[in-house]
Amino acid sequence: MKAHKISSAPVPMRWVGPIAISGNVLTDSLSVPLATYESPLWHSVGRGARVSRLCEGGIKTTLIDERMTRSILLEAADAGVALNAWQRLQGLRDEMQAVVSQSSRFAKLIDLHHQIVGNLLYIRLEFTTGDASGHNMVTNAADHLMRWFMETFPELSYGSISGNYCSDKKATAVNGILGRGKNVVAEILIPRDICERRLLTTPEKVVDLNIKKNLLGTLMAGGIRSANAHYANMLLAFYMSTGQDAANIVEGSQGVTHAEVREGNLYFSCTLPNLIVGTVGNGKGLDFVEDNLQQLGCREEREPGANARRLAAICATVVLCGELSLLAAQTNPGELMQAHIQLERG
Amino acid sequence: MKAHKISSAPVPMRWVGPIAISGNVLTDSLSVPLATYESPLWHSVGRGARVSRLCEGGIKTTLIDERMTRSILLEAADAGVALNAWQRLQGLRDEMQAVVSQSSRFAKLIDLHHQIVGNLLYIRLEFTTGDASGHNMVTNAADHLMRWFMETFPELSYGSISGNYCSDKKATAVNGILGRGKNVVAEILIPRDICERRLLTTPEKVVDLNIKKNLLGTLMAGGIRSANAHYANMLLAFYMSTGQDAANIVEGSQGVTHAEVREGNLYFSCTLPNLIVGTVGNGKGLDFVEDNLQQLGCREEREPGANARRLAAICATVVLCGELSLLAAQTNPGELMQAHIQLERG
Amino acid sequence: MKAHKISSAPVPMRWVGPIAISGNVLTDSLSVPLATYESPLWHSVGRGARVSRLCEGGIKTTLIDERMTRSILLEAADAGVALNAWQRLQGLRDEMQAVVSQSSRFAKLIDLHHQIVGNLLYIRLEFTTGDASGHNMVTNAADHLMRWFMETFPELSYGSISGNYCSDKKATAVNGILGRGKNVVAEILIPRDICERRLLTTPEKVVDLNIKKNLLGTLMAGGIRSANAHYANMLLAFYMSTGQDAANIVEGSQGVTHAEVREGNLYFSCTLPNLIVGTVGNGKGLDFVEDNLQQLGCREEREPGANARRLAAICATVVLCGELSLLAAQTNPGELMQAHIQLERG
Amino acid sequence: MKAHKISSAPVPMRWVGPIAISGNVLTDSLSVPLATYESPLWHSVGRGARVSRLCEGGIKTTLIDERMTRSILLEAADAGVALNAWQRLQGLRDEMQAVVSQSSRFAKLIDLHHQIVGNLLYIRLEFTTGDASGHNMVTNAADHLMRWFMETFPELSYGSISGNYCSDKKATAVNGILGRGKNVVAEILIPRDICERRLLTTPEKVVDLNIKKNLLGTLMAGGIRSANAHYANMLLAFYMSTGQDAANIVEGSQGVTHAEVREGNLYFSCTLPNLIVGTVGNGKGLDFVEDNLQQLGCREEREPGANARRLAAICATVVLCGELSLLAAQTNPGELMQAHIQLERG
Repeated sequence: MKAHKISSAPVPMRWVGPIAISGNVLTDSLSVPLATYESPLWHSVGRGARVSRLCEGGIKTTLIDERMTRSILLEAADAGVALNAWQRLQGLRDEMQAVVSQSSRFAKLIDLHHQIVGNLLYIRLEFTTGDASGHNMVTNAADHLMRWFMETFPELSYGSISGNYCSDKKATAVNGILGRGKNVVAEILIPRDICERRLLTTPEKVVDLNIKKNLLGTLMAGGIRSANAHYANMLLAFYMSTGQDAANIVEGSQGVTHAEVREGNLYFSCTLPNLIVGTVGNGKGLDFVEDNLQQLGCREEREPGANARRLAAICATVVLCGELSLLAAQTNPGELMQAHIQLERG
Repeated sequence: MKAHKISSAPVPMRWVGPIAISGNVLTDSLSVPLATYESPLWHSVGRGARVSRLCEGGIKTTLIDERMTRSILLEAADAGVALNAWQRLQGLRDEMQAVVSQSSRFAKLIDLHHQIVGNLLYIRLEFTTGDASGHNMVTNAADHLMRWFMETFPELSYGSISGNYCSDKKATAVNGILGRGKNVVAEILIPRDICERRLLTTPEKVVDLNIKKNLLGTLMAGGIRSANAHYANMLLAFYMSTGQDAANIVEGSQGVTHAEVREGNLYFSCTLPNLIVGTVGNGKGLDFVEDNLQQLGCREEREPGANARRLAAICATVVLCGELSLLAAQTNPGELMQAHIQLERG
Repeated sequence: MKAHKISSAPVPMRWVGPIAISGNVLTDSLSVPLATYESPLWHSVGRGARVSRLCEGGIKTTLIDERMTRSILLEAADAGVALNAWQRLQGLRDEMQAVVSQSSRFAKLIDLHHQIVGNLLYIRLEFTTGDASGHNMVTNAADHLMRWFMETFPELSYGSISGNYCSDKKATAVNGILGRGKNVVAEILIPRDICERRLLTTPEKVVDLNIKKNLLGTLMAGGIRSANAHYANMLLAFYMSTGQDAANIVEGSQGVTHAEVREGNLYFSCTLPNLIVGTVGNGKGLDFVEDNLQQLGCREEREPGANARRLAAICATVVLCGELSLLAAQTNPGELMQAHIQLERG
Repeated sequence: MKAHKISSAPVPMRWVGPIAISGNVLTDSLSVPLATYESPLWHSVGRGARVSRLCEGGIKTTLIDERMTRSILLEAADAGVALNAWQRLQGLRDEMQAVVSQSSRFAKLIDLHHQIVGNLLYIRLEFTTGDASGHNMVTNAADHLMRWFMETFPELSYGSISGNYCSDKKATAVNGILGRGKNVVAEILIPRDICERRLLTTPEKVVDLNIKKNLLGTLMAGGIRSANAHYANMLLAFYMSTGQDAANIVEGSQGVTHAEVREGNLYFSCTLPNLIVGTVGNGKGLDFVEDNLQQLGCREEREPGANARRLAAICATVVLCGELSLLAAQTNPGELMQAHIQLERG
């Protein structure tokens, strides 16, 4: 029956760059694959990449944090019982770690947070997961821990293996505040003349637009922990070409563009607190994905997690390239539409 | 140069279903293509589809609204000047419509909203866009209107062609409150015995989990206008297989699952206020996309917009199938992980 | 029994100002009463008031909009039934107006909005309410309309007289997007030398702090449609001294401070989209409240609503005075705490 | 000059109760003072209090957490410098504690959190503050720490003594997720017959309304971490009568009502994660406040913090009484308005 055979959806892909990168994860100059139905994106990221090569140090990336999370939900008779269980749990972290280690070689429990609502206890389990983005690893670990919880705290009953306080593929505040995925900052210092000649704008115009559009405009729209022009576009294209679970662009797109005029030059940064990427796991066995990861230098023998961190840092530079390019375009009346029309028709 | 050739990323795709559908857009029974790196999704949606075929009327979809938006940003000397311009604009809707009609055969201005922040005037332009999702159409219309604004209101100056009050590919409140994309509700009434035999759970358990996980859990996480388990997964897979701009899953994923026990049976609904889909435009020329749209019955000769509405309604049923299946699984300790392991390893 | 006698809580109150005011509501110079347990507030607003008197035009206020809302909740069998009822309702606005007029001489229905979630229909009723803040007036109108709905749409059943889509005394996005209370912008243009001599800071420092603290800081905190330092403080003190329902500072405090350097001077604005105030109704019969309203010029014979608009505009200037003063102080390390200690101990 | 004398605003106050209370803070039965312009509130809380006396254990309160916060803002050259400073800071907690102890006898630093946005470093300082709500104490501690930061990290420069990541008197997500003020849960188990006879409703109706109004309605309104009918009302009245800084009702009102039917009876809970109250500090020297605190048993010789915790727990029960009463009323068409009219006119 045709309906159940596995075929494939060939999404148009192109390499863009090279992007000049430095920072606490990698220093390199490399092109990136972007798979998308929105072809103007290639041009947009490409323009940012050219600028990166003209600036000292290129785009500097800083990895701030990394963790993957799953929240479980447990029910108690009342808040007092829930609180007692939570307090007792604090002394049992070694036991929890032992349970986690049975579920995976790579998962390590690094922190716990909780919320008590009436008689409900939400426990947010936070792990490092090596080179995997870690969805399945933390679900598996949570599954093992859930069994252990049921035995260790007979006064609690099963609520859910996922209580949405994780929060996976949802735009929430908790992921940025407590951390989920890689937290990466990408920054660039663009000399005024590069800004004028290559981006056809000025540092002042970019800073001004960022405040009025990304900060104030998103605020008036009722955004949550987010201020950017179009992170989602770059994330989707990079995620599709590198075998990521691209539904994570939902929280990935919650990031902040911050720009300043510094001695007449443009300081431009993209902060991405919730970048969920991996170099092993679902989607990674496919030939083209393997090729792409290889070319990005994410198939080297390194300590667990190092390849994934490299991928996250590269991803953040792609986001910066596209964000910079679009903001620059929008400072000029008419440029955006002309570019779209020209690229799509020409 | 290798870096700049266009190749493709072949994303695994499978047809799932058929899903039984009724409602104010279509009544049909049809399979759907899902392109994803997360293979368990096929099984999950498939289970929901099977349930749909066992319930009277299948999944009922109701299209509530449709529009596409772009917000422009204009600057005035102060709030008084901004307010005067806005008030004057109310008498000029016909002129605006005429400008819009020069930019596109299909775009029609249907409403305007605004926000004034200090001296800044954000105008949210709302259009119908025929069968296109309409990103480019509304940007083009906004571009034409911006020129007209500059001429008609010399007291206003250019701020941005997009002021983020649109809001495109960002999780905000404005899209659900004022509308963006198709607003679709998908509902099903599942007899208790189907619930028990096919979903291995009870109506009471599903309702209870929905409250504690989707409503309360997301709330505690600081979610914004959203309460669901994993809409983003289904949207991504359906968007990739039908040539959509999948970055719109960011706002698309902001939807609400609402369930009730009705006379012992399960009423289960998914409300998707921000479904952005189209059957013409970027991504639609590709062969496999054309094939898929054809099979979904979205390549018929109909009034402009009818094919896109059909696609949106189908999309909502896919979301319901996957949401129902995962929630049912999570009511049972251990089932989720076992299913994942079995499917991925087997 | 002592517990049930009505006594009073004498909250310390002081007149501050005068504040110089212009704009589309009033042009005047007047002192304002502030009742608060936080005495430094008097000094803070007083400093802003002094600055207002030194700037041309003082503080300019612009009333953007006014309305009061109540949302009712109705239940249908499914979304299709809810949608049909909503669509039919659009042709019955005159009938609705007639029902409203039976409930009050002053309430006028000016708009309707809705949300459909599964089978639930939320209808947001929007009224003008004369000089009253209008809580009771709209509840009463909603009560009359609810009876009429039950009769006119037998397919709908009672859900709630208030469905929280209003939204009263909650921090949400809907109030700013659709309007609730008075929407007022207060603006001032402060010459650089006044800024330096009276506020001991520079326009650049105030603008910079506003971006990093109010915009970026609140954003990272997961704020919703809000960016200010302490609107809540001024609102509370002004509300208590003028007999307002001060619980409305919850949504009132959701406002945005926007500042710019203009030719070396400081443009500073406070946008308050949800100011809920009245000059008649609960709290207004008290002697001291009547005295205060009288002195504020809000007891004149004017068209219904004019006194309340005047009060709202004055309130916005109080907010600006206090906001300006605190932000200026926070640009200077150590000033804030010294001021507090000095004022409270001396 | 009249404008500058301190007078007072006598807010109507009444004692309501007694409320029956148990839990991990106090077990007692006591009346509470409520100062408000909204007289129906006395009746509403009074009805809840009567119910509390008829239920075994009355209202059970559980104190989950307590802390007071201030966030400072520091600037670095880039994110890498900010991250290094933050990492180095982790080894200097004892030094920080020493600095804090110079600023106050009572303030103790208990935790630190941070956010890095581009080159900006927000540090959220978290303290216990004895019996004070702690606004001034933490500002003073932050002021001392800021000086120490400037000396210890010469690579960082002053941004702001308050960076709005605190977050004081703003509705944000961070306060509930990381904690600010007292986190208190109040719960009651109401036998069905009490529910029917005293609240004129059923457990099923209350649970149903809570889901559709507080959870779904607030969600559709774009609320943030909040689901209740009117916590703000009770908080304001209790805060005014006990000398609190009532502007903190902004975050205090962000709480969650959760109800369930348990064996035919009603489990009803109010979770208040951000209750900011104190028994010493501003507002507490006033005679009537002292009297009220005395009668509430919050003027006893106890370990620092115990009186404030008692006050917080009592406050939570007041909130529950009023919330329960209003929800019960809203389950019945027409009851709410009739009650208002009767009370205000009679």
